Amino acid sequence: MNQIIGVIPPVLTPFKANGDVDYEAYCRNLARWNQYPLAGYLVLGSNSESAYLSEDEKLELISLTVEGAGSRLVLAGTGLESTRHTIALTNKAAHLGAHAALVLTPCYYGNRMNEQALMSHFTMIGESADIPVMMYNVPRFTHVNLPASVVGHLSRHPNIGGMKDSTGDVAQLVSFQRVSQTGFNLMVGTASVWYPALTLGLTAGVMALANCCPQECVDIQHLWQSGRTADAQTLFRRMSPVNAAVTATFGVAGLKYAAELLGYSAGYTRSPLQPLTSEEQASLRRILSEAQLI
Amino acid sequence: MNQIIGVIPPVLTPFKANGDVDYEAYCRNLARWNQYPLAGYLVLGSNSESAYLSEDEKLELISLTVEGAGSRLVLAGTGLESTRHTIALTNKAAHLGAHAALVLTPCYYGNRMNEQALMSHFTMIGESADIPVMMYNVPRFTHVNLPASVVGHLSRHPNIGGMKDSTGDVAQLVSFQRVSQTGFNLMVGTASVWYPALTLGLTAGVMALANCCPQECVDIQHLWQSGRTADAQTLFRRMSPVNAAVTATFGVAGLKYAAELLGYSAGYTRSPLQPLTSEEQASLRRILSEAQLI
Amino acid sequence: MNQIIGVIPPVLTPFKANGDVDYEAYCRNLARWNQYPLAGYLVLGSNSESAYLSEDEKLELISLTVEGAGSRLVLAGTGLESTRHTIALTNKAAHLGAHAALVLTPCYYGNRMNEQALMSHFTMIGESADIPVMMYNVPRFTHVNLPASVVGHLSRHPNIGGMKDSTGDVAQLVSFQRVSQTGFNLMVGTASVWYPALTLGLTAGVMALANCCPQECVDIQHLWQSGRTADAQTLFRRMSPVNAAVTATFGVAGLKYAAELLGYSAGYTRSPLQPLTSEEQASLRRILSEAQLI
Amino acid sequence: MNQIIGVIPPVLTPFKANGDVDYEAYCRNLARWNQYPLAGYLVLGSNSESAYLSEDEKLELISLTVEGAGSRLVLAGTGLESTRHTIALTNKAAHLGAHAALVLTPCYYGNRMNEQALMSHFTMIGESADIPVMMYNVPRFTHVNLPASVVGHLSRHPNIGGMKDSTGDVAQLVSFQRVSQTGFNLMVGTASVWYPALTLGLTAGVMALANCCPQECVDIQHLWQSGRTADAQTLFRRMSPVNAAVTATFGVAGLKYAAELLGYSAGYTRSPLQPLTSEEQASLRRILSEAQLI
Repeated sequence: MNQIIGVIPPVLTPFKANGDVDYEAYCRNLARWNQYPLAGYLVLGSNSESAYLSEDEKLELISLTVEGAGSRLVLAGTGLESTRHTIALTNKAAHLGAHAALVLTPCYYGNRMNEQALMSHFTMIGESADIPVMMYNVPRFTHVNLPASVVGHLSRHPNIGGMKDSTGDVAQLVSFQRVSQTGFNLMVGTASVWYPALTLGLTAGVMALANCCPQECVDIQHLWQSGRTADAQTLFRRMSPVNAAVTATFGVAGLKYAAELLGYSAGYTRSPLQPLTSEEQASLRRILSEAQLI
Repeated sequence: MNQIIGVIPPVLTPFKANGDVDYEAYCRNLARWNQYPLAGYLVLGSNSESAYLSEDEKLELISLTVEGAGSRLVLAGTGLESTRHTIALTNKAAHLGAHAALVLTPCYYGNRMNEQALMSHFTMIGESADIPVMMYNVPRFTHVNLPASVVGHLSRHPNIGGMKDSTGDVAQLVSFQRVSQTGFNLMVGTASVWYPALTLGLTAGVMALANCCPQECVDIQHLWQSGRTADAQTLFRRMSPVNAAVTATFGVAGLKYAAELLGYSAGYTRSPLQPLTSEEQASLRRILSEAQLI
Repeated sequence: MNQIIGVIPPVLTPFKANGDVDYEAYCRNLARWNQYPLAGYLVLGSNSESAYLSEDEKLELISLTVEGAGSRLVLAGTGLESTRHTIALTNKAAHLGAHAALVLTPCYYGNRMNEQALMSHFTMIGESADIPVMMYNVPRFTHVNLPASVVGHLSRHPNIGGMKDSTGDVAQLVSFQRVSQTGFNLMVGTASVWYPALTLGLTAGVMALANCCPQECVDIQHLWQSGRTADAQTLFRRMSPVNAAVTATFGVAGLKYAAELLGYSAGYTRSPLQPLTSEEQASLRRILSEAQLI
Repeated sequence: MNQIIGVIPPVLTPFKANGDVDYEAYCRNLARWNQYPLAGYLVLGSNSESAYLSEDEKLELISLTVEGAGSRLVLAGTGLESTRHTIALTNKAAHLGAHAALVLTPCYYGNRMNEQALMSHFTMIGESADIPVMMYNVPRFTHVNLPASVVGHLSRHPNIGGMKDSTGDVAQLVSFQRVSQTGFNLMVGTASVWYPALTLGLTAGVMALANCCPQECVDIQHLWQSGRTADAQTLFRRMSPVNAAVTATFGVAGLKYAAELLGYSAGYTRSPLQPLTSEEQASLRRILSEAQLI
């Protein structure tokens, strides 16, 4: 797998008022994101409400992303609880043209997802997948955290090409860097530590914030790379409260509301995920306004 | 919904070495459980590895349970992350003859599963389901805990007939009793507090332990009901370490190993769930032996 | 150590507006509690704000309790972080006439308070204390939970006579019963599971609620002992929301406010513990009113 | 308060085999640290086992530190649970010559340590203290995390000069930077994110690792400041596993063992803190050896 460099939005899925996927809105968003210098797209990440999508919907979204992404990288979230169903979905995604699969740590039986279980799961998937596999670590949702020892071992698997770590734990990123093989694509999975990750030599980030503020996410990286450290920091600090709002504080509903305000067709959330209350909306508008985004 | 009285095992799903469901083994187990005075069966609870089952597998297991249960109550676990898919699966289960649906709290976006989201989810399902709905609260797996206020409101919904609370938190059971409407079937979801739950007036329990020790679970209730308090306590205390082993300590793999030792066809776990190590097996055999079960 | 039977309030410490201990109010409260059939007093438990008291204040409170308790049992909370200071304070308490010491699990270096550290700490204290030692397990404040294995071992120490478990985890009480030596005084440390604890054969409870509702706490036990199970349950259920309010929800400030309303001289909390806001006060009054206490 | 620039070890307290403080060893360590370009010392931080020290011992250690530190900054940990005792100890430290006090968040009644309680506590201390006050946030030990809103407000208090944040949460450091007043000394409290903190513009770190590896901690900062980014990163990465070992993994006992191996007189831990087992010692030696320290 080649080195990934740049910003990848984990794209959101617009729903209609009746709860159906709004595929047209999805394609409009892709067209708009294509105007920015993004490195690729992650379809079916946590911000896509993938936990609420049927397999048919997932496959259609993969197809549309491959079609709409042009030459950009397409990562598809194909992780399911069981190893066998994850392999099956991964290979359907491969068949539809996804370039790599992002596989969530299984989590339902969390206290039994020990090193042995995680090693076995990812190894079997790596062996059977028709495209490279990347691990997806997001304890905020899964309550499972990949141990560095597992990352170290799996980074040496010929068909496991990287990972997305969404913990925001910079010391953990350092430990993953230290144990993983050269060429392993360690991607930071949240804009909350995008600038620190860059200063540590990471080159790729998959971040919710890139749905609504793609240019700013890209600019932080360009400023850092061109040695304009202070400007990179300033922009990063300006974006920090926005990122906190559209992730930890208000979640996907917040991200969708911000994206709508910034010109995207984010649509409804799917039940049981609730829309923001009017107080939450006001609070989020204030945050966007303070960041000079609206 | 009528009052449920008695013990209901959340039945396990045997898998073959190749990972396929072993339906024949499943039916053999049902036939054996039928020899005990159990109140019914829960198919597709957490101990069935339902998170690892395809919809086709789930429907086949519901059918076989309805067929094999005779006149006993059949509860089917139909909870999925999205409201719409939960309703669809619930009504398929209804069509196949399940008497009620046990619906897990959605959990992936756990910090947004607030009172409003949970109220909305269960109300929509209650309104659309062709069979009574029961709520399933198991924070050990979901990291979401149903607030008493939500239980109180939903207990008044005409098509929400009860709940399974698997926290083992007796004070919480008391708070649920206090707020819920008369006739609401509050079932304890773990043998770890089966005897205390009986002393508080609960009449039904859905407990993993009943997979491998059905008679003992039933006896605790009969002893209590017949006023033999000391004997009920003694038996409950003897079973406690066994229950801890097949739930918190060793999980489903432990339950399956114990069930095999006690004459059931429990089969393999499905990947990524790992079998017990040989040390874990030895530890579990010792616990069963100390409880005079083997 | 003899078997302890009955209800023991962990008595609160009244402070004046200037933050000094109000010893006169303390003695007035003791005189009032003496009118109820309580088994004894715990001075310097968590509800006494002992974390905020100087050693001089602690010793004065022990003296006053011994003096005011008549023939009743006096337990003194003497646990400090270090073993040596705990031993010193315990023996000062012994010298002042306390009958037994309640020793908190050390907790600052919580992740190093493993079985070895806890075994060593309590064994050294048991060996050096001039009065019997009881262990105090309250993870809500300490974030340390005594393992059953440690309880089992220490219950066999000749100078460790019992423990207070304030987790409200009934399954854990059962496991402690199972492993501890005959004669070990296992006391439930919260009214939230007082009735279930009685049905399991426990005979003593140290509960915050007994500060403001001593008679009701005693009555639950008497009703259970005299076979009036349904009445015991009814009273227990009526008290449950009150107990939740004066412990988990509003803490010591809530307990003090309730005690004031019910005729005790509870006084101020010591800083940084804040008094209830007026909204919290109104909410607590409503709960007391619904329980027919005011 | 002036800007603090550089590395400050939170110095450990050597104990003799009998548990007494070994003041001579303490002074020997100070003399050795004085050979390194450290910015100052923190006496009575978490790594000093201050939770296990009597007031007399604390005051003696403050005196010895002031005496031994030459012209360097001396911070004294004076936080206790109550506001009044914290003020008293702070002013005793001031009288002995400490330059500023580091005040731990109170934590025993953790769920009541809300914004109001924390604001009130630190404001009262700031008003009454004869030396500048710095806040100390270390949820690993206290289970309380200072909210950014509180930090923002208190950073404007004329006698609150800074804080030590030991969470290792870089996004939180950014949020603290964003809300706090210019001139507020935000110090990172763990070497686990020392390099990332420097890249964000922080200039001071109080880190356990500086007890045993002072030069390396200083070098990371010098390399960063002189633009040798890659060398700073390399050294930081080499130190990372050492830091993890002497903090999260093995705690104070590990730090003491490493310090002994590297030439300091670290002595015994005080009970109940246990020494490392021989397996833990071997593991730590291996980590030090891999980092080319022994």
